[in-house]
Amino acid sequence: MISSPGAALIRRQQFLLKCLGAYRNKSCNTSSRSIKMWSVMSGGTALEADAISVLRSITPSLHLSRHKGQAGKIAVIGGCREYTGAPYFSAISALRIGADLSHVFCTKDAGPVIKSYSPELIVHPILEESYSIRDEEKKSVSAKIIAEIDKWMERFDCIVIGPGLGRDSFLLDCVSDIMKRARQANVPMVIDGDGLFLVTNDLDLVSGYPLAVLTPNVNEYKRLVQKLLSSEVNDQDGAGQLLTLAKRIGATILRKGKADHISDGDAVHGVSVYGSPRRCGGQGDILSGSVAVFLSWARQCAVIGEVKMNPTVLACIAASVVLRKSASLAFDSKRRSTLTGDIIECLGRSLEEICPVS
Amino acid sequence: MISSPGAALIRRQQFLLKCLGAYRNKSCNTSSRSIKMWSVMSGGTALEADAISVLRSITPSLHLSRHKGQAGKIAVIGGCREYTGAPYFSAISALRIGADLSHVFCTKDAGPVIKSYSPELIVHPILEESYSIRDEEKKSVSAKIIAEIDKWMERFDCIVIGPGLGRDSFLLDCVSDIMKRARQANVPMVIDGDGLFLVTNDLDLVSGYPLAVLTPNVNEYKRLVQKLLSSEVNDQDGAGQLLTLAKRIGATILRKGKADHISDGDAVHGVSVYGSPRRCGGQGDILSGSVAVFLSWARQCAVIGEVKMNPTVLACIAASVVLRKSASLAFDSKRRSTLTGDIIECLGRSLEEICPVS
Repeated sequence: MISSPGAALIRRQQFLLKCLGAYRNKSCNTSSRSIKMWSVMSGGTALEADAISVLRSITPSLHLSRHKGQAGKIAVIGGCREYTGAPYFSAISALRIGADLSHVFCTKDAGPVIKSYSPELIVHPILEESYSIRDEEKKSVSAKIIAEIDKWMERFDCIVIGPGLGRDSFLLDCVSDIMKRARQANVPMVIDGDGLFLVTNDLDLVSGYPLAVLTPNVNEYKRLVQKLLSSEVNDQDGAGQLLTLAKRIGATILRKGKADHISDGDAVHGVSVYGSPRRCGGQGDILSGSVAVFLSWARQCAVIGEVKMNPTVLACIAASVVLRKSASLAFDSKRRSTLTGDIIECLGRSLEEICPVS
Repeated sequence: MISSPGAALIRRQQFLLKCLGAYRNKSCNTSSRSIKMWSVMSGGTALEADAISVLRSITPSLHLSRHKGQAGKIAVIGGCREYTGAPYFSAISALRIGADLSHVFCTKDAGPVIKSYSPELIVHPILEESYSIRDEEKKSVSAKIIAEIDKWMERFDCIVIGPGLGRDSFLLDCVSDIMKRARQANVPMVIDGDGLFLVTNDLDLVSGYPLAVLTPNVNEYKRLVQKLLSSEVNDQDGAGQLLTLAKRIGATILRKGKADHISDGDAVHGVSVYGSPRRCGGQGDILSGSVAVFLSWARQCAVIGEVKMNPTVLACIAASVVLRKSASLAFDSKRRSTLTGDIIECLGRSLEEICPVS
C-alpha cells in the first residue's frame, strides 16, 4: 500500500505525542544499552518519554525523488584567527547527521584553515576582527558583512551561532546583527560557546524567540543563571530552575551534563543514555550542528495537525541521544584516546542503528 | 563496596611506593614483550621497579561525572616558519594519551599549517620571529605576547617548551619570558628540542625548579654535560653522571637512548622496554606531549599522604613505557615504513593494553 506523505506525517506526529506524553515510567533497550528519557511538567508531574522514538519520528524518509537541500541547509557562524576546529566540528556533524549542505561564515584568517579540514563544507571567510580594520572603516565593513549574509539567510533551515567565535568586540557586534536578521527571517538558531557569552550579555537577541535553542555547558549555564535569575545553580531543584530560566528567556535550553536536561519553559526533559566518560573538547560542537539538522527536520513534522509539539525540544532530545550513542561507540573502540573526530565518525552508524534508512 | 576517592588515591600511592622501591630484581611480561625497569639510588643501591605499574597507578579513572578539562589541559610552546610538525606531534600526542584540551602557541606563519593538521588542537599564532618585526617594535611586541600568554597560563596543567621552536633570538627571548611566567605560576614544564638549547645557555630558567623536566636526546645531553659539568659524557658511569647533572640543575632529566634513564638528583630510573629500531624524526615530540599529560596526572596522586613521590619521575617512567610500546606496535605493522604518525595512532591501544579503562 502506498500512503500519501501527509498521512505519513500525521502518523509520525501521533507517534511523537505518544513518545513525549503517554509513555510513563518506561525504558527501552537498544543495542544492549539502557535508554532513559524522562520529563517533568511545570506542575511537577513526572512524565517519561523515549528519546529513540523521538529521533525515529523526526528523521525524514529518504526517497530517490528528493532534491539537494531538502534534508537541510545549515550554516555555522563562527571561526576566527584563534579557533577553527569548533566551527568545523559543528558544520561537518550537520552533514554527517544528514543535512545536504553545510556552510561556515568565519573570519578571513580562519577561512583557508577550515576549508582545508574538508572539501565538503562551503566556507565564507567574510567576517572581520577588530585588529584587521581601522575604526573609521567599521561601519562600512559591518554593513558589507550584513549585506553578504542577507543574500544567504533565507536559504538556511537553521543557523548555529558561536562555535569558535571568540570574544572580539567588533566580530560579536556583527554577529548580534546577524542574529537580528535571522530572527526577522524566522530562521531557527542554535546558540553555543561564545554565542552564549553574547546572549548572556544581551538577552534581547533571543528573548521570546521560540526558534532559539541555547546549549550551555556547566560554566555557561552557571553564568546564565547568575545573570538572569540573580542566583546560583540549584542542583536540588535543577529541573525547576531550568524551567524557570527557559520561561524567563522564552527560548529552549539544552543544559549539557552527566544527563542532558532540556526545557522550553513548559516542561523539562532529560536524556541520560549512556555516553562516554571522555571529556575531550569539541563534543559540544557536534551537539550544536546536530541540533540544527534535527530542528530543521522536526519543524517539518511538528507543525502538522492541531496539536503543536515544540520542534526545538524534539531536536534537542534527538541530538542528545545520537551524540551519546556515538560517543559510546567511539569510546568502545578508542578508549582513553577517543577524540571528537572519532565520535563524528560514529554518527552515521549510530543513526543507522537507531533509525535504519530502510 | 564503594570506597572514597581519597582512599583510592592513598592505595594508589602505596602501590606506587611498592613499584618504585620494594620490587627488587623483578621483571614482568606484557604482550609477550619483556618489561625491565630499574633504579639506582644515589648511594649506589640498585632498585628495580615496574614501569607498567607506575603507569597504571597514575592514570586516573574515568567517570561520567567528570568535566571537560579535568583530565588535563596542556600547552605546547613551539612551531615557527621552518618547523610545524614537531609541535603538532607533541600536542596531538597529549590528546591521544587522554588530555581533554591541547593548545599550541606558535608563530603567525606556523599557525595556519598546524591548525590544518587537526581541528582537535587550539592553535594560537601569536609568536613572532625577528624577520617579521622592526627593532623599535620588539619591546612592545614582546609585551603583547606575554600579556596574551598571561591570560592563559594558570589554566594549564603543564606546558611543553621547545618542539619546533627554532633558534630565532627574538623568539627565544620571548620564550624565556614565558618560562619565567610559568615558573611564577607554578606550572610544570617539559623542555625538549630548541627549548633545551635555550636552557643550556641560561640554566637559571629551570635551575632549582622541581616541576621542570628536561628530555634531551644524545646530542642535547652531550651539550648539557659539557656546559654544566665541564666534561664529556661518561658511559662507564652513565647513571652516576646523570644523577650528578640532575642534582646540579635541580630538575628532572629524562635522557633518551636505547634505554631511557630518568633522574631527579635523588635516584636514577631506567626504562628499557622493547620499542622499535626505527628512528624517524618526531618520536621525541610524542614523548614530550606524553610526559606533560602524565605529569598533570601524577601530581594529583603523588602529593597525597605523608610520603611524597616525585611526580616528574613518575611521569617520565609512564611516558617512556607508553612510547616504547606504541613504537613496537607500530613497527609490527609498518616495519621500515613506520612514521611518527603511525606510532601516535598506537598510543590508545598501548594505553588500553597496559591500563584498561574498566
